Amino acid sequence: MAATTKHFEAVPQVAADAEVRGRNLIVMKFGGTSVGDTQKIKDVARRLVTARETGQRVVGVLSAMGDTTDELIRLAQEVSPQPHPREYDMLVSVGERISNALCAMAIRDLGHEAVSLTGSQAGIVTDTVHGKAKIVEVRARRLNEELDKDRIVLVAGFQGVSTDLEVTTLGRGGSDATAVALASALGGACEISTDVEGVFTADPRVVPDALKLPRISYEEMLEMAASGARVMMARSIEIARRYGVPLHVRAAHGKTEGTWIGEEAGLVLEKAIISGVTHDTSEAKASILAVPDRPGVAALVFRALADAGVNIDMIVQNSSAEGTTDITFTLPKTDLAAAEPILERLAKETQAKGVVYDPEIAKVSLVGAGMKSHPGVAADMFEALAEAGINIEIISTSSIRVSCVVRASEVERAVRAVHERFRLFAEERVNG
Amino acid sequence: MAATTKHFEAVPQVAADAEVRGRNLIVMKFGGTSVGDTQKIKDVARRLVTARETGQRVVGVLSAMGDTTDELIRLAQEVSPQPHPREYDMLVSVGERISNALCAMAIRDLGHEAVSLTGSQAGIVTDTVHGKAKIVEVRARRLNEELDKDRIVLVAGFQGVSTDLEVTTLGRGGSDATAVALASALGGACEISTDVEGVFTADPRVVPDALKLPRISYEEMLEMAASGARVMMARSIEIARRYGVPLHVRAAHGKTEGTWIGEEAGLVLEKAIISGVTHDTSEAKASILAVPDRPGVAALVFRALADAGVNIDMIVQNSSAEGTTDITFTLPKTDLAAAEPILERLAKETQAKGVVYDPEIAKVSLVGAGMKSHPGVAADMFEALAEAGINIEIISTSSIRVSCVVRASEVERAVRAVHERFRLFAEERVNG
Repeated sequence: MAATTKHFEAVPQVAADAEVRGRNLIVMKFGGTSVGDTQKIKDVARRLVTARETGQRVVGVLSAMGDTTDELIRLAQEVSPQPHPREYDMLVSVGERISNALCAMAIRDLGHEAVSLTGSQAGIVTDTVHGKAKIVEVRARRLNEELDKDRIVLVAGFQGVSTDLEVTTLGRGGSDATAVALASALGGACEISTDVEGVFTADPRVVPDALKLPRISYEEMLEMAASGARVMMARSIEIARRYGVPLHVRAAHGKTEGTWIGEEAGLVLEKAIISGVTHDTSEAKASILAVPDRPGVAALVFRALADAGVNIDMIVQNSSAEGTTDITFTLPKTDLAAAEPILERLAKETQAKGVVYDPEIAKVSLVGAGMKSHPGVAADMFEALAEAGINIEIISTSSIRVSCVVRASEVERAVRAVHERFRLFAEERVNG
Repeated sequence: MAATTKHFEAVPQVAADAEVRGRNLIVMKFGGTSVGDTQKIKDVARRLVTARETGQRVVGVLSAMGDTTDELIRLAQEVSPQPHPREYDMLVSVGERISNALCAMAIRDLGHEAVSLTGSQAGIVTDTVHGKAKIVEVRARRLNEELDKDRIVLVAGFQGVSTDLEVTTLGRGGSDATAVALASALGGACEISTDVEGVFTADPRVVPDALKLPRISYEEMLEMAASGARVMMARSIEIARRYGVPLHVRAAHGKTEGTWIGEEAGLVLEKAIISGVTHDTSEAKASILAVPDRPGVAALVFRALADAGVNIDMIVQNSSAEGTTDITFTLPKTDLAAAEPILERLAKETQAKGVVYDPEIAKVSLVGAGMKSHPGVAADMFEALAEAGINIEIISTSSIRVSCVVRASEVERAVRAVHERFRLFAEERVNG
């Protein structure tokens, strides 16, 4: 499993108390492409005002404009080959401050009160790990004061203030995490506006007749995120699940409903065998060949990789009759450079035959809470792939997911074959 | 006198106590052109490190890089015709954060410890006037802690945190004000690195053989700033004067000494009759013609202009035999639009003959503490102008300054004529 799914924000104090729950409050988050220029920022201002005019309390969380953060990173690289993490956070956190201040100006021109807050002013308290800090607490006093003044409150996403009073950034998926943590602390729903219309039964670029899901459970969404769906990162879904924050994923521009993510019990899931088919081409396969098959070898390998920060996903081990075993696993292609010297060393130490790498793989996954009670689902998926003439190289399953590694060149055919096989179930879910 | 000279920072608590005075500390300020790109920021980093390696404690104050602030202002104008002042400050204050964070990275790469602080983190407390806040206090605890860790401390200039805990910007000359207030609070000298080599006896672009002054008093520097020298704004010189901060103005790139600004008593000024000749082409002349000459008319005019925020400089009033008077004064050309409707109304109300405007004027001033005890200086200046065939339209004097308004087209000849007349005194001062 990817290590990132194991280290979600420790947020002991972000849950709102019962008194504030059920307040009519929404946190609306907009990503970088939704605020790419000043016209788009004015569009977002109007969206926030429209929500406010329905009587809800509104908090906006805007990412940095388009390529602002990339430009800041470029400056840092020109100055320093390895920028100091504390100063790097001081630098890259300004992008969100720009977009949120601009949006507050635009809202005031629409005749509403607004105020933009830095992560620090908004009480987003994090740990001290610069560049990938985790939220430990939301001190919502100032936020509530501003909301009590009938203001639309804008909060710079992706950043906070550490327990050492330093500016920190939250790393990948940080703005979503900010939005969900705020919704939790303030007692409201969280709407994530993005460049897709919601969560689909498969990537619509690969499967043109994929269906948009009206509802999905946190657990299914976590599995879909972990297996390649790029709508949201597992990190913020996990916070929402832990604190029961209703999530709504929708297109930034457009008026249709997107996908609601919530508790399984709150959804009508009896027929929901399948949520969707996901795929992921970002991983590579590595195999240590003919390792002497003795206790502790696997532990040795995966401890060394974990210590180097390499995220391992699927693992298979096949023992042979000769007393050796092949250990095969997948890892992000971006981690290959870090993993290679470790694996070469381990192969020598364990007297293995060698290590081979294969970046030309893809993973196809089928996700659905209903498969728990339908034991035939995995077999159906394997059959669909076999009928399409696609070879399965590795299989891994959880209680609500089946994943198969195939050749990268065959991934789109694989997704379409599996989706076609489970299309009926998906249609029942969307319409039922 | 310009109104800006009357509202200097109220800085009751920035003066360091006796204990910290005399610490070996320097605050080094670098303007926008000195940090225009990443290479220049690396050059500034080296300058700061070189100062640190002489054993001094070093605080750097960097302005925003080149046109960063202009770009932020452009974004604000695209979003809002009149950006809300509080949000405007949230926006434009990020420029200094970028340059200072980059410089801290560069210093660390040179093997020294460094930390960049926002105005707020550095304890720069201001009043609540967004866009042109004044510093009311420097809470130096964090600064001293960082200095005690042997760090070079970088402080974002031009910004602070208000007594309402909002981000404020300090307006024009704000970064210099930050640097001088820090030097005062921490008990050290302040070095202003700029694009000129120091304070000259006249603008070297107009008078090629103008001389660089090694030393000048606060009072003379204030008069020079108020009469057109663009080296530093009166604002920060006034803070330095009030708290006795030694100022050193020098070129950002280059190794020669610039000009030291300090107490008159601490300088060898016996022979220092003349500091320099300054000129200013930014003002216009306005005259209200044939106003009935009765008590209270001048008060009426200048109260109305002051209430509209118009900065009046020189004023002359000539009564005629017919019981009327002409009131003539100079004001910044940029204030003309605000002044015109007020003057038209006042002319009607007072039954004056009318108002005439003349933007084609320039002011030439001669500044020098020594002229207090040399009564012939003003007459010498008028003679020099007369010999050059230049007509004087308005005269105004202070104890250490004589200013004459002339035609704008004649200003360079006027500066050269006056400078030539007083060249001997200036040379005595530079060499003596």
